[in-house]
Amino acid sequence: VASEKLPRPRPRADELELSGEQMRRLLDAAAKRTIAHVESLPRQPSWATEGGEQLARSLREEMPEEGRPAEELLDLVFEKVIPASLNTAGPGYLAYIPAGGLFQSAVADFVAQATNRYAGVFSVAPGLVALEANVLRWFSQIVGYPRESQGILTTGGSLSNFSALVTARRERLPENFLSGMVYTSDQTHHSVEKAAMLAGFPHGNVRVIGTDETFRIRIPDLESAIAADRRAGKTPFLISANAGTTNTGAVDDLRALADIAEREKLWLHADAAYGGFFALTAEGRRILAGIERADSIVLDPHKSLFLPYGTGCLLVRDGPALKRAHALSADYMPTMQDDPGMPDFNLLSPELSREWRGLRVWLPIKMHGIAAFRRALEEKLALAREAADKLRVMPGIEIVAEPQLSLVAFRANRPGWDVGEANEVNKALLDRINARKRVYMTGTRLGSRFVLRLCVLSFRTHADAVEMALEDIRAALEESS
Amino acid sequence: VASEKLPRPRPRADELELSGEQMRRLLDAAAKRTIAHVESLPRQPSWATEGGEQLARSLREEMPEEGRPAEELLDLVFEKVIPASLNTAGPGYLAYIPAGGLFQSAVADFVAQATNRYAGVFSVAPGLVALEANVLRWFSQIVGYPRESQGILTTGGSLSNFSALVTARRERLPENFLSGMVYTSDQTHHSVEKAAMLAGFPHGNVRVIGTDETFRIRIPDLESAIAADRRAGKTPFLISANAGTTNTGAVDDLRALADIAEREKLWLHADAAYGGFFALTAEGRRILAGIERADSIVLDPHKSLFLPYGTGCLLVRDGPALKRAHALSADYMPTMQDDPGMPDFNLLSPELSREWRGLRVWLPIKMHGIAAFRRALEEKLALAREAADKLRVMPGIEIVAEPQLSLVAFRANRPGWDVGEANEVNKALLDRINARKRVYMTGTRLGSRFVLRLCVLSFRTHADAVEMALEDIRAALEESS
Repeated sequence: VASEKLPRPRPRADELELSGEQMRRLLDAAAKRTIAHVESLPRQPSWATEGGEQLARSLREEMPEEGRPAEELLDLVFEKVIPASLNTAGPGYLAYIPAGGLFQSAVADFVAQATNRYAGVFSVAPGLVALEANVLRWFSQIVGYPRESQGILTTGGSLSNFSALVTARRERLPENFLSGMVYTSDQTHHSVEKAAMLAGFPHGNVRVIGTDETFRIRIPDLESAIAADRRAGKTPFLISANAGTTNTGAVDDLRALADIAEREKLWLHADAAYGGFFALTAEGRRILAGIERADSIVLDPHKSLFLPYGTGCLLVRDGPALKRAHALSADYMPTMQDDPGMPDFNLLSPELSREWRGLRVWLPIKMHGIAAFRRALEEKLALAREAADKLRVMPGIEIVAEPQLSLVAFRANRPGWDVGEANEVNKALLDRINARKRVYMTGTRLGSRFVLRLCVLSFRTHADAVEMALEDIRAALEESS
Repeated sequence: VASEKLPRPRPRADELELSGEQMRRLLDAAAKRTIAHVESLPRQPSWATEGGEQLARSLREEMPEEGRPAEELLDLVFEKVIPASLNTAGPGYLAYIPAGGLFQSAVADFVAQATNRYAGVFSVAPGLVALEANVLRWFSQIVGYPRESQGILTTGGSLSNFSALVTARRERLPENFLSGMVYTSDQTHHSVEKAAMLAGFPHGNVRVIGTDETFRIRIPDLESAIAADRRAGKTPFLISANAGTTNTGAVDDLRALADIAEREKLWLHADAAYGGFFALTAEGRRILAGIERADSIVLDPHKSLFLPYGTGCLLVRDGPALKRAHALSADYMPTMQDDPGMPDFNLLSPELSREWRGLRVWLPIKMHGIAAFRRALEEKLALAREAADKLRVMPGIEIVAEPQLSLVAFRANRPGWDVGEANEVNKALLDRINARKRVYMTGTRLGSRFVLRLCVLSFRTHADAVEMALEDIRAALEESS
């Protein structure tokens, strides 16, 4: 047998284990740099990716046989690696959909990782699962879901959309699902199409419906498409509604979509990765009315709950559907149970082993209360509206998408410019704004128009940062005229 | 427009932001408890899940409107929540496939989360991507992959297996893939079947092949199954090989499987979530010979690289295949590029936003050098062989699976017992061993036999813990006779 081939006695290999003192020293070294870094965020440039390829080449190295001092490694990370990026954690980050990065959540994650208990099965970690289940129940409550709903924490919107699609496929389509049709708008996040691709749907099965002047899906066009597909022998089964698009923050008419889904017996999915937590505010509830009628909802706590990257969520109204789509077990697994109040997360999600994601959500909410998050979200809504008001009166600027949530899209325009000219001007304008490195904004295409977007979502972004963005827009406009 | 409905001026909402002093205090409070907890791991019981449902009920609470002091919350987590679980981080954890939980990695994760930069696109964070790409290149080197291979870090084996299957589906099957057949053994981890289910394959498309007395797939049976399926009009496309099963640590004959895959033009996938990093050792390389011929390999750094839960990896030999299966982009996304040495991870994986997983792998390897991990893995191999040697001479014990890697499966047996009797005895034996709470082991079924498993994989498990397990097995045996 193989056992005879090994030399004995084998040496005790404990060099990876740190003493209490070594742990303290390592954490102190990391903490000192991290806290100084976070404190300096408002003074850091909004991006610093120049020379990125050169940096990457300089960092390339062979697998190290021997170790290096931690302080030296942390210096490299804090001095060279982290600064050379978009400052996604800073107050001037108004690009894409900003993530937060609450320090409280990072601390919770440290606790979860260093204690390293397994939270995928209730019976082996009832307390860990209970805290995570609390968080999911609170989220259900925020969107107005009933008690029998269930949820999972994921790493982000993409995997949440994927699990939603897999759940809908299981509930609404036969084993041969290849004629199943998904309906999105031309503003839908590409992760929905990607989810369909990963789930095995043929490329042509995602039907893209046009949007109106507020970038909401055109309801009559959706109805016609569904009818046409039925006539052609296709099997409509899912409408993916937007509750806050990435381009403009548009929220589809969720009540109208729920009516159609009900009538046509389709699964209504709401991608509320960006918009969902605005349901904590009165204004958000008004805008998101009808979301509680969706069969599944994607929320990203790392967006509108300000948490660090890697924290997504999927809620399914008919909780057991999540399990029907994801459950599979084996002889070597621990005992599972069936009380939906005490879930075995591995049966509800694609993941088996994974980090205890619940704590990083639970700790900040418990420390501050949900009211603090509500107030922060109210501020973001108001800041975007103020920004829109000021952009609206800025000479040469036209608002292309009024803020529905906390995002405004706009562009420079003048009578006589054709769309190509305008696009060139606006790309140059964006570059000039970002060249100041006080704020960072991004553009997108809306139809043929290139537009600039200003998205207020970081908990670190207040009126001063938005004011700075407006100043830099004004200055860049002046430079270009 | 909506903007008129909001009251102005809106208040500045900055209560979620912590000052430097508040950050220090919060981290200190967490660090004090975490380090004391980790230091006490060897003295903690190996499990404490009694009364779990009661605990879970007591933790259930409504969404809090207002906050609570962090110290109080951390006390709850450290005193009530974490202890009431399997002590998956302790030296006596010999169950399932143990994860590690290197403190060094938890610190790295804290840094990544608190600084919260986005690492999914090279151009926006070249340094972050470069460090993660280094790690992936090192992993490729460990398994003997060529330069053109590519990889992704995932949350664990399940999502890695899923992405491997999706990649193979894209490479080897037409758009209508429903006749595609997957070949596994009866020892294959259920996440492979789950991956097939999530990817949309009909239930019957996973063909389960029997194993020999060492729990390796029966090669002739596999060949016959492939031939029979071809005759029946099915489309064989993927063999999922085991490089360390969960039940016994068995490693299939990877060279024979590579030959078949080559001849039959099938995708060879190797699930090396548990076993892969043993390729760092001479013994492991011998056992895993042929793994470099697999088209894709799953590794779990949170298993045999001792990291905390939530760190998996998929490597694909033909790197661009990963991209063909996962790439999709959109107008609002940053510029991507094509240098395979500087990957855009979002194009290679199902995830878009996610945490910067690279740092938690990079820091421990850089701090200690890979040699320290090699020595630790050599120790695990030797410990399992020593345990097997001692179990082999224990009266009334029979080894059911000799250690191929760091796992031995055994059971109590006596002449005259039928399998049902033996199973009852062994279940009771396992309960008595675990009742001492010094170590924690789990059982599984091998065919009709219930067996006990002793898996040595934590970096905290040394000879003393294994000796304790053997003592407790002996004592439990005596009690039962």
